[in-house]
Amino acid sequence: MNNHRMAAAYRLLHHASNRILHQRRRLSPNFTSQVNRSSSTPSGNHALFNLILIYLHLILNHQFDSHDNKSSFPRFIAGFTHQNASYRCDLQKSSLIHMQNMSVIHHRKFGSIVQRNPMFSTINQDDLVYFEKILGAKKVIQDHEELQTANTDWMHKYKGSSKLMLQPENTTELSRILEYCNSRCLAVVPQGGNTGLVGGSVPVFDEIIINTRRMNSIISFDEVSGVLVCEAGCILENLISFLDKKGFIMPLDLGAKGSCQIGGNISTNAGGLRLVRYGSLHGTVLGLEVVLANGSVMDMLGTLRKDNTGYDLKHLFIGSEGSLGIITKVSILTPPKLSSVNIAFLACQDYISCQKLLFQAKRKLGEILSAFEFLDAQAMNLVLNHLDSVRNPLPSSIYNFYVLIETTGSNESNDKEKLEAFLLHAMESGLVSDGALAQDFSQASSFWHIREGIPEALMKAGAVYKYDLSLPVEKMYDLVEEMRIRLGGAANVVGYGHLGDGNLHLNVSAPQYDDAILAQIEPFVYEWTSQHRGSISAEHGLGLMKAEKIYYSKSSETVQLMASIKKLLDPSGILNPYKVIPSSLLS
Amino acid sequence: MNNHRMAAAYRLLHHASNRILHQRRRLSPNFTSQVNRSSSTPSGNHALFNLILIYLHLILNHQFDSHDNKSSFPRFIAGFTHQNASYRCDLQKSSLIHMQNMSVIHHRKFGSIVQRNPMFSTINQDDLVYFEKILGAKKVIQDHEELQTANTDWMHKYKGSSKLMLQPENTTELSRILEYCNSRCLAVVPQGGNTGLVGGSVPVFDEIIINTRRMNSIISFDEVSGVLVCEAGCILENLISFLDKKGFIMPLDLGAKGSCQIGGNISTNAGGLRLVRYGSLHGTVLGLEVVLANGSVMDMLGTLRKDNTGYDLKHLFIGSEGSLGIITKVSILTPPKLSSVNIAFLACQDYISCQKLLFQAKRKLGEILSAFEFLDAQAMNLVLNHLDSVRNPLPSSIYNFYVLIETTGSNESNDKEKLEAFLLHAMESGLVSDGALAQDFSQASSFWHIREGIPEALMKAGAVYKYDLSLPVEKMYDLVEEMRIRLGGAANVVGYGHLGDGNLHLNVSAPQYDDAILAQIEPFVYEWTSQHRGSISAEHGLGLMKAEKIYYSKSSETVQLMASIKKLLDPSGILNPYKVIPSSLLS
Repeated sequence: MNNHRMAAAYRLLHHASNRILHQRRRLSPNFTSQVNRSSSTPSGNHALFNLILIYLHLILNHQFDSHDNKSSFPRFIAGFTHQNASYRCDLQKSSLIHMQNMSVIHHRKFGSIVQRNPMFSTINQDDLVYFEKILGAKKVIQDHEELQTANTDWMHKYKGSSKLMLQPENTTELSRILEYCNSRCLAVVPQGGNTGLVGGSVPVFDEIIINTRRMNSIISFDEVSGVLVCEAGCILENLISFLDKKGFIMPLDLGAKGSCQIGGNISTNAGGLRLVRYGSLHGTVLGLEVVLANGSVMDMLGTLRKDNTGYDLKHLFIGSEGSLGIITKVSILTPPKLSSVNIAFLACQDYISCQKLLFQAKRKLGEILSAFEFLDAQAMNLVLNHLDSVRNPLPSSIYNFYVLIETTGSNESNDKEKLEAFLLHAMESGLVSDGALAQDFSQASSFWHIREGIPEALMKAGAVYKYDLSLPVEKMYDLVEEMRIRLGGAANVVGYGHLGDGNLHLNVSAPQYDDAILAQIEPFVYEWTSQHRGSISAEHGLGLMKAEKIYYSKSSETVQLMASIKKLLDPSGILNPYKVIPSSLLS
Repeated sequence: MNNHRMAAAYRLLHHASNRILHQRRRLSPNFTSQVNRSSSTPSGNHALFNLILIYLHLILNHQFDSHDNKSSFPRFIAGFTHQNASYRCDLQKSSLIHMQNMSVIHHRKFGSIVQRNPMFSTINQDDLVYFEKILGAKKVIQDHEELQTANTDWMHKYKGSSKLMLQPENTTELSRILEYCNSRCLAVVPQGGNTGLVGGSVPVFDEIIINTRRMNSIISFDEVSGVLVCEAGCILENLISFLDKKGFIMPLDLGAKGSCQIGGNISTNAGGLRLVRYGSLHGTVLGLEVVLANGSVMDMLGTLRKDNTGYDLKHLFIGSEGSLGIITKVSILTPPKLSSVNIAFLACQDYISCQKLLFQAKRKLGEILSAFEFLDAQAMNLVLNHLDSVRNPLPSSIYNFYVLIETTGSNESNDKEKLEAFLLHAMESGLVSDGALAQDFSQASSFWHIREGIPEALMKAGAVYKYDLSLPVEKMYDLVEEMRIRLGGAANVVGYGHLGDGNLHLNVSAPQYDDAILAQIEPFVYEWTSQHRGSISAEHGLGLMKAEKIYYSKSSETVQLMASIKKLLDPSGILNPYKVIPSSLLS
């Protein structure tokens, strides 16, 4: 960083800080002004650190009151978190509507890759009579339209032909369904919000759909321990709203929160936006109730942080995509909602700077870092070109990389001070070329919108080949660059994702689907990932899409043991067949 | 809290804060003065909040230097963390020596509760020839004295009669050993540092001891991701020292760190002192290499934070106490070492205040809370009476409960400010009756010494019946009080533990072992725990001691599934027999 830039940055920080101190009392609720580049800032080719140092209105009016900490401490950012959450929900819904409209154009069939298992029975009239007897008619769905929706995945990429959906209301009903299906060798597909991306939650052929939406009660919440116990069909966003009132948050958050169910989240070991802070569900899920294929109910619904009494079998059901059992109840540790949230949108000139920034963020922001997302220039351009609602917060130039950093902590002034010191240092060392700090809900949402709008922008741009990879951070972007070289001008290669977790979303965008392009991408992308000991599915799971590709990320001994465990728990293979494990191992 | 106390507390905080600001420059390295009760403080029956607001010498001299954050930020507490760690190691070693001396007095035999499985072979000359051939003579131990030590557990409570210890140096050697033992039906017991408390790491009869101490290499460390890959025999303290130089810490810490091995830690799902902050090993262990009973090597040694490609089988081996496979390599996510550590030792008048304090700490200290430990007056008295090196930091009175709170963060002044605000509020609301903040390494160590010295003090006091329970926090201390009523004056009932994790260490201290006392404790303690959906082993595991008691914490369906998985992975049952799972299910 040259002396001019350093001096300008210091001035901006100093100026902004003083200004904020003076303005704490007099700012209006609609305050949205920014500290833009000062007139004394040097011009030229160097991008300026366009530091927008602005405080949320509610924070500005918040005064620490030692007599009433309990009420004043956690409440003032509640609206921020909540509003931000609502924003993300809306985004997801609009994407969903859009993608449904697009499905006609980009629909692709993948059903032909497996054959129906002839061992499975087909439904007959006696089966229907039995199900109506144990469930009542309204929970036995044969309506064509409802089945059409339930047979089709979120991306309109996979489509089954199930003739029956069952909606049990409690564990006993689900247990009786499975006991019967197992005895009759009727295959089933467990379905939650049906928001998966790998064809895991829809039938491949005529499997009975067991939808958990009616099992949606919150059973208990302990305000001392933060342990929530609920049924599997609770929608994630409803749990977030419930906890918000109690001063807690869910340890996971993802774009599909408005539709996805906690049982599905756990069955697929959902990652999402908070993993960098709160870790994986293997760490936060404390207990599960699960119904096995034969209908037996496994009560592992502990609410304890520590329990070393035998094998911790609940982990078998976290991420096994409903192929070992169906989750019916969940016990999960929820963190307290912290009062201070800050979001910075930064530009970096190269990928090595993004890596170094991550290293510094982990060290300097430490305990308050709650998200570290990145996107490349191609992703930024897509969003700017295809989403009307997005504007570039750093318009002076298009940079090669952008990073979104979120901090969440318990003290606004401390966090702000820490973030400013971190950003100042990042500027001095030249890691960051430009940047902005969110000032209010609206700006925070607009920053998140850029990152979260990428899937929607990709869909609008044409056909898209999506890959969800875990790779060592230092290697991650090499794959994007190699893919660009392979594809030449035939397609637009886009890289973005959860850099803090080593999770790359590699997307190839083209005007329409083309087998020649696919042949350039696969199996290259899987082989490359395998060579670098990465994962071909970081957070989306294997489902139907990648069941046969498991060996790219798992050793044959490990896959063999998975198959043995599948056969032990589900000898007839009725639970979510054709998914996760290669079919050849189960026949 | 009455007005007098509130006023005094405000004065003390204000006075101390101002004084610290003025003294930042002029304090000498040996500064140890305290802000004691001021002359204006009201006297009477009310205990004063004896706030010792003092900063570490290194912190006092530390000035934020924005030009050199990288070097100045993380380094200045390194010594503190390290010294504190060293202290705890010494304590563990002294306890060990003491317990070895005590063993003659308090030795108890537990071997008679199971019968040797007649299906197991006994070692013959051909076996020895084979082992020497694949390992070399020095790794085949038949020396009486070495075997004597390896046959005996840390508490001198369990003693096997193995005639052979093998010390493989790598995975291939271990694989060949197990393949052979499995073919010959020779039972084995995996052994790391042999620091367990439930007889899990010593032979029950003549099982071959497979000790992993020679597999002690660090394989790799990634400074961007913080992922450490090492062999299972690495001693925890060596890993802590290695990481310290890199600016990272292990996500677990426990008293036995000087002897215990990371493979054993993971096999037993060790909890310890950092769980409240960094969560369980199910969240932080990223990958494992494991050798199964038949010698096959399971490569699950991923280094990725996210990998949803099939069942996450490594979790089967975390906490299964070596009964499903032997861990040979470990990949674990290590957090950055943060620069600021603060420790407060507080007194509470009743248990409900401890609970409320925990609730407040989670909320107000949020992201910087790194330990929340508690002990009762009986535990405090034991330590004061039996350990010469301990003094009471709050000598004005004996309170009913004491709480040790540790914070760890990235900014000393921010953390201190946050902790002070929290303590002030705790005083105002009457939750805390008295307290002290550690001033330097020595004082921090002395506070930890009180908490960590309890096991040693219990051993010095006579015979001790130890229970390691998870319970809902609000019920936890009811058990201690009920136990006191049951036992009357026959024994001293002591309660302490990791309150932040809901983990109670219930100890009954008596002049000598007495079956009448034991009959009063068991099965009552297990039944009570079971009724409250607690765990009869929070962090110690089941081992031999509690294998047959598993049903107090797990449903019969779950235990049955555990047994099925044991039979699947180890059909001959050679791995750590008689432990974890009730023998009747495996015959």
